[in-house]
Amino acid sequence: MKIFCSKDALLSGVNAVQRAVSHKNPLPVLQGILIQTENQSLQFAATDLEMGIRCDVPAQVDEPGTTIVPAKLFAEVVRKLPDTTISLEERGRSIKICYYQSELVLNGYDPEEFPLLPDLIEPLSFSIPTMVFKNMIRQTIFSCATEESRPVFNGILLQIDGSMIRLVATDTHRLAYMISEIANPEEVRFSGIVPSKTLSEIYRLLKDEDEVITISYSNNQVVFQFGSIYLVSRLIEGQFPNYKQVIPQTCETKVNLSVREFLDAVERASLLSRDKSGANIIRINVEGNELRIDQTSELGKISEQIGIEMEGNDVRIAFNAKFLIDALKVIDSEHVLFELSGPFSPGVMRPLDNPNYIYLVLPVRTS
Amino acid sequence: MKIFCSKDALLSGVNAVQRAVSHKNPLPVLQGILIQTENQSLQFAATDLEMGIRCDVPAQVDEPGTTIVPAKLFAEVVRKLPDTTISLEERGRSIKICYYQSELVLNGYDPEEFPLLPDLIEPLSFSIPTMVFKNMIRQTIFSCATEESRPVFNGILLQIDGSMIRLVATDTHRLAYMISEIANPEEVRFSGIVPSKTLSEIYRLLKDEDEVITISYSNNQVVFQFGSIYLVSRLIEGQFPNYKQVIPQTCETKVNLSVREFLDAVERASLLSRDKSGANIIRINVEGNELRIDQTSELGKISEQIGIEMEGNDVRIAFNAKFLIDALKVIDSEHVLFELSGPFSPGVMRPLDNPNYIYLVLPVRTS
Repeated sequence: MKIFCSKDALLSGVNAVQRAVSHKNPLPVLQGILIQTENQSLQFAATDLEMGIRCDVPAQVDEPGTTIVPAKLFAEVVRKLPDTTISLEERGRSIKICYYQSELVLNGYDPEEFPLLPDLIEPLSFSIPTMVFKNMIRQTIFSCATEESRPVFNGILLQIDGSMIRLVATDTHRLAYMISEIANPEEVRFSGIVPSKTLSEIYRLLKDEDEVITISYSNNQVVFQFGSIYLVSRLIEGQFPNYKQVIPQTCETKVNLSVREFLDAVERASLLSRDKSGANIIRINVEGNELRIDQTSELGKISEQIGIEMEGNDVRIAFNAKFLIDALKVIDSEHVLFELSGPFSPGVMRPLDNPNYIYLVLPVRTS
Repeated sequence: MKIFCSKDALLSGVNAVQRAVSHKNPLPVLQGILIQTENQSLQFAATDLEMGIRCDVPAQVDEPGTTIVPAKLFAEVVRKLPDTTISLEERGRSIKICYYQSELVLNGYDPEEFPLLPDLIEPLSFSIPTMVFKNMIRQTIFSCATEESRPVFNGILLQIDGSMIRLVATDTHRLAYMISEIANPEEVRFSGIVPSKTLSEIYRLLKDEDEVITISYSNNQVVFQFGSIYLVSRLIEGQFPNYKQVIPQTCETKVNLSVREFLDAVERASLLSRDKSGANIIRINVEGNELRIDQTSELGKISEQIGIEMEGNDVRIAFNAKFLIDALKVIDSEHVLFELSGPFSPGVMRPLDNPNYIYLVLPVRTS
């Protein structure tokens, strides 16, 4: 292999694939980035066997070839390269990097040992505008579980059903649900649980100028393609909970409140409600067009009061402050409808100007 | 005490003094911020007994008074306050904070227990333009020692001598020296070792629009005043090394090189010269108008070569890469004169267009 390319091209290739590099896997070659020529471009690839990313960057290819470089060191080197034309030359298991009168040789790995990123066999595909998908990820992903005891809760349910795409995430204490309309001329149907790590990586890599993301799948794998990036991920096996059953259709109290005011009040109250165990429970009192939060602790006390519009019964209910804050931070609407049914039933937030989003949060039982 | 002020005023007061709050001292009151009325303003103060900071912010004072709030919690609360007029009201050892229809009470400390920040007795003073002093701190402070075994090396020598102000910092492996000219009509003389923590805090607090910083001192204390901030610090006792004796007046080799090219080459070479003990030694070879760095490690090898102008003998010398990188990053000139005298004598960097700065670095003996 012998190629010439710009420092920026190398850097964009490295940045695209670096998060797929495995730092835990006992197979050393997975700590590397595969670099191979592909017509007049250079393809970067990395995988941790759960997720794999490929990215093409422009290059002048003098001799085709394949090499594997140690990911962390190569990334550090590329960041420090001068802003000029760089040549890469394969030398057995090493790669020689030249710039100006200087050169650098990095010891690499045997390309034969690198697992191929699978191409899907007869996949079904659909496309969705980048900004729509990015927004759907942002508004749901925070509800995934972080502990790894039950894998289905570490993923987001992705469903295509008629002209609708749906994302649902839950950690069993709260659930975020979002749908969007898509063009689906081929009547593709899909339902799978995508690891949250995969979607957070896609969120990071999606540029605002990438217009469309194409999603393909077959069996237990899903592929996301956008810009010059090809990202393949396994799907999580298992049964996602029946979200339809969980979301209440009726409620006893409807509270219309300002997202900003409610968020600020909950955040301030949470400063005084942290206890030693790390729990952070706040008590909400909805009564006569007022929402009050009263907390007393050894640090002091707080009485937050915000004006609301309400229908239905007065209610006193307690929530984990973090679960309210997480959702209120990603809701773009100015006002949200908070639906409650007494102290033991879940609260449901529906942004006033966005019927496609639902956030459900279980209350905390307090003495 | 009863006052009204803006959220921004509270925030700027808290931000100014927060770093002086003590988190280690067994005296609980030092974890607090003193807030007291001062005519039609509010004065914030904090101290860890080594350094104390006061800052005045505008306020409408209805009743004068003094209170001490827990620093960390108060800062968190202030950051979350709405952008409106806030009232603060003292209630025994607590403070009541009101905004809109809400209120928050924080338990505080007894103001009687707070140590007074000393006012200097008959101090001598001089002034220096903010940008000059900020730049002097930036170009020297990184050479202070971080381990605390010998206190004089944790400080920067500050000297006023005729129309010159001088800062010198050393950790015994390298030394940074900078002088500037000041107006000194009263022929003030001063020499003291200022803790690097004090100067780094001043660096952080100095705004570009603060035009002048006034420095006063008496006995073992020094006061820095700028904008609305009064910062008092103890001086470090002890004998600072005789820097004049250390800086060589002659050299055997003079190398004129590009700061950018040298920095980049050293940074890249350092990626391949880190060893398991954390040492990072790079070997430099100056010969025939070329500077070369050749490193080989288990990771690979690098041959950096940059064009230079030189006078005098060829030389091979080794340095700790970090000590070169630290200095090359703060030198503003495009070119630097690197003066060497064989492999065992210190290297001296002098920016080509700034005769007021000197950086000296000891070589490393290699086999």
